[in-house]
Amino acid sequence: MNSLESVIKAFTLTGENPQLIHNITNYVTVNDCANILLAMGSSPIMADDPREVAEIAAICSGLVINIGTLNERTIESMIIAGKTANRLNHPVVLDPVGAGASLLRTETTYRLLDEVKFSVIRGNISEILTVAKGAGRTRGVDADAADMVTEGNMDATLAMATDLAKRTSAIVAITGPMDLITDGKETSIVKNGNPEMSKITGTGCMLSAMTAAYVAANPNELLSAAVCAVATMGIAGELAAEKVTAKALGTGSLRTHIIDAISQMTPQCIETHGKISFL
Amino acid sequence: MNSLESVIKAFTLTGENPQLIHNITNYVTVNDCANILLAMGSSPIMADDPREVAEIAAICSGLVINIGTLNERTIESMIIAGKTANRLNHPVVLDPVGAGASLLRTETTYRLLDEVKFSVIRGNISEILTVAKGAGRTRGVDADAADMVTEGNMDATLAMATDLAKRTSAIVAITGPMDLITDGKETSIVKNGNPEMSKITGTGCMLSAMTAAYVAANPNELLSAAVCAVATMGIAGELAAEKVTAKALGTGSLRTHIIDAISQMTPQCIETHGKISFL
Amino acid sequence: MNSLESVIKAFTLTGENPQLIHNITNYVTVNDCANILLAMGSSPIMADDPREVAEIAAICSGLVINIGTLNERTIESMIIAGKTANRLNHPVVLDPVGAGASLLRTETTYRLLDEVKFSVIRGNISEILTVAKGAGRTRGVDADAADMVTEGNMDATLAMATDLAKRTSAIVAITGPMDLITDGKETSIVKNGNPEMSKITGTGCMLSAMTAAYVAANPNELLSAAVCAVATMGIAGELAAEKVTAKALGTGSLRTHIIDAISQMTPQCIETHGKISFL
Repeated sequence: MNSLESVIKAFTLTGENPQLIHNITNYVTVNDCANILLAMGSSPIMADDPREVAEIAAICSGLVINIGTLNERTIESMIIAGKTANRLNHPVVLDPVGAGASLLRTETTYRLLDEVKFSVIRGNISEILTVAKGAGRTRGVDADAADMVTEGNMDATLAMATDLAKRTSAIVAITGPMDLITDGKETSIVKNGNPEMSKITGTGCMLSAMTAAYVAANPNELLSAAVCAVATMGIAGELAAEKVTAKALGTGSLRTHIIDAISQMTPQCIETHGKISFL
Repeated sequence: MNSLESVIKAFTLTGENPQLIHNITNYVTVNDCANILLAMGSSPIMADDPREVAEIAAICSGLVINIGTLNERTIESMIIAGKTANRLNHPVVLDPVGAGASLLRTETTYRLLDEVKFSVIRGNISEILTVAKGAGRTRGVDADAADMVTEGNMDATLAMATDLAKRTSAIVAITGPMDLITDGKETSIVKNGNPEMSKITGTGCMLSAMTAAYVAANPNELLSAAVCAVATMGIAGELAAEKVTAKALGTGSLRTHIIDAISQMTPQCIETHGKISFL
Repeated sequence: MNSLESVIKAFTLTGENPQLIHNITNYVTVNDCANILLAMGSSPIMADDPREVAEIAAICSGLVINIGTLNERTIESMIIAGKTANRLNHPVVLDPVGAGASLLRTETTYRLLDEVKFSVIRGNISEILTVAKGAGRTRGVDADAADMVTEGNMDATLAMATDLAKRTSAIVAITGPMDLITDGKETSIVKNGNPEMSKITGTGCMLSAMTAAYVAANPNELLSAAVCAVATMGIAGELAAEKVTAKALGTGSLRTHIIDAISQMTPQCIETHGKISFL
């Protein structure tokens, strides 16, 4: 039964069981991804040569595949690592950065979905629409405003996400001003976060990396684990934005304060600040 | 007519018209480039696989080609993306990082100049001398002290830059202790900045990324737009250095404060702090 | 004769003689490596295309080879640059990140040791055991707890490191809670540092980059130079952790404060805080 309590339990369990996460990711936010995993008490390893990724995936407990700066070599590595993680029953998180923005990204996303079984697919609404329908309106790597999840289009979005979750047997996490996380049966809405988070790069990539650690530590509570990742990132964004505003700082400081907030996150903090509901 | 007013107008117009900028850049400062574009209200997308760069260049409104960690794959992508941007009349900024330091960098720079039409070429004096004469004294990626623009050699530098601007039909921006920006007809001298800026990596790369956004938003005021980029980065460096000194912090904090300052830049700030003249 | 005095002398001499260091390194911490070299007063250049690395190595005074995200292209570049640096008598530092975690990393490490002469080999204990015995217990890129250097296993570790130093004619630097640096004849133990440093990525990579600059500036005092790098990074970690704790900040700030501390390091600071002994 998923609830605020099960989300907090997933948080605590992950803190007690640090995970080693294999990241095949983009070179834009890779440093942030490494630091956020360390901030939450887990560890990163980045490796993207096809000759080593099977071994690296095997010594890790989870894998993130992020297509943000994909190329021929890394796509091959994503497939190999994904299959290895599947064979070993390690969770794999897909972050389809910019799916819909180029044929290469869209087709790579579809190929990955064909060849690898994902535990979680996390993206903004445009990326998830591309994944779901083969037709998003992705404008670069940001979500298109016309696609945003609102109270108004919630029903349609929920239906799309639920259907995608069922078809892929993956948890689908759509993040934005309002976050929707579903395993196809149960759905959570998270309303944490701060608009300033869109003024820095990497909050989505960091969230995907964290998600891999949370689901790896909670193999029997995948939905709560994914919600935990989404909520803690949102809360960290709120706390960081508050401090940055209070100190009259800017977006460079916001990035630092978000990582700070993740390193200082507590169960009490999630209980106090979490705006988490399960439908 | 270029003036402090037209520079401020370029700033305001860019804020009101966020640009999506395609960056084919180095992996050293790529995170800073993404964050500075977001800090100024625009957006970045990084993509360097030859199979997708034409599409990505097409959905963006400007392109930056930065050769800081060039390789076979990315050089091919630079050419493809550059030609696409040219065909679509999108501005392209060249940052010839380390031109003169290796034959590969120098020859790639010349090849790019042959095959792509640039709106702005921005580099330190050694890099620009390499571009102009095929013979700089680039020592690594920093400018050689013997090359520095000073009041003493200003006439010769101005003649070189003006000639280069005319030959390439590009704005030439030489940045250093004193900055010279010319379109071959009119020239601006900007005296903003702080020596501490040379103690961190990325100020040049960030400036090139910003330049692409400013010129994309001001297609009819290219010189003012380029001057705006140079001046706002210089002012941000001054404000950041001031705060870092006041708080007895070091160079790690300087980097964060520069991004902060860009995210907090205002027309008033440019008016108060800008040391901008047009010859 | 190595001593606290010779370590401080190495520090001062490096400040007076800035070095240009060629880094073939991973894309996770490359920005930190560039910024730490600038923070200590030296300069970085990153270049990893096989066609240019010989030229770049030649204009630099030292080279770092870090295998953190190795691939086919960069391995070839490491060999070419290493041989060039050897021929020119420039010091080369090896950071065998994750050696033992995959066959590719282990075999590349052995190939590098066969084809390139290193001045310093710096890694955590698991990596160095892999280098020394072909059999470490590297778990990802962090050291395995079972391998840690303690007072208890100091004799065995010292014997292993001394033997490796003699066989490779390189200084061996094993860093962790306690650091051991040996040239095979003399050994230093450094007890600076703070456990919080393991909560951010890059302290090891930054240390390797700094080591290259210190040994390049002190060709006749290699051991003192390597100890200087290890001690200043440890002291920076202590000072940064202290400030971060005092201000109730987190790990994002720790990273910034470590770079700050390196940029503010003084001989007096090393004298006051250094926990450096020579056996």
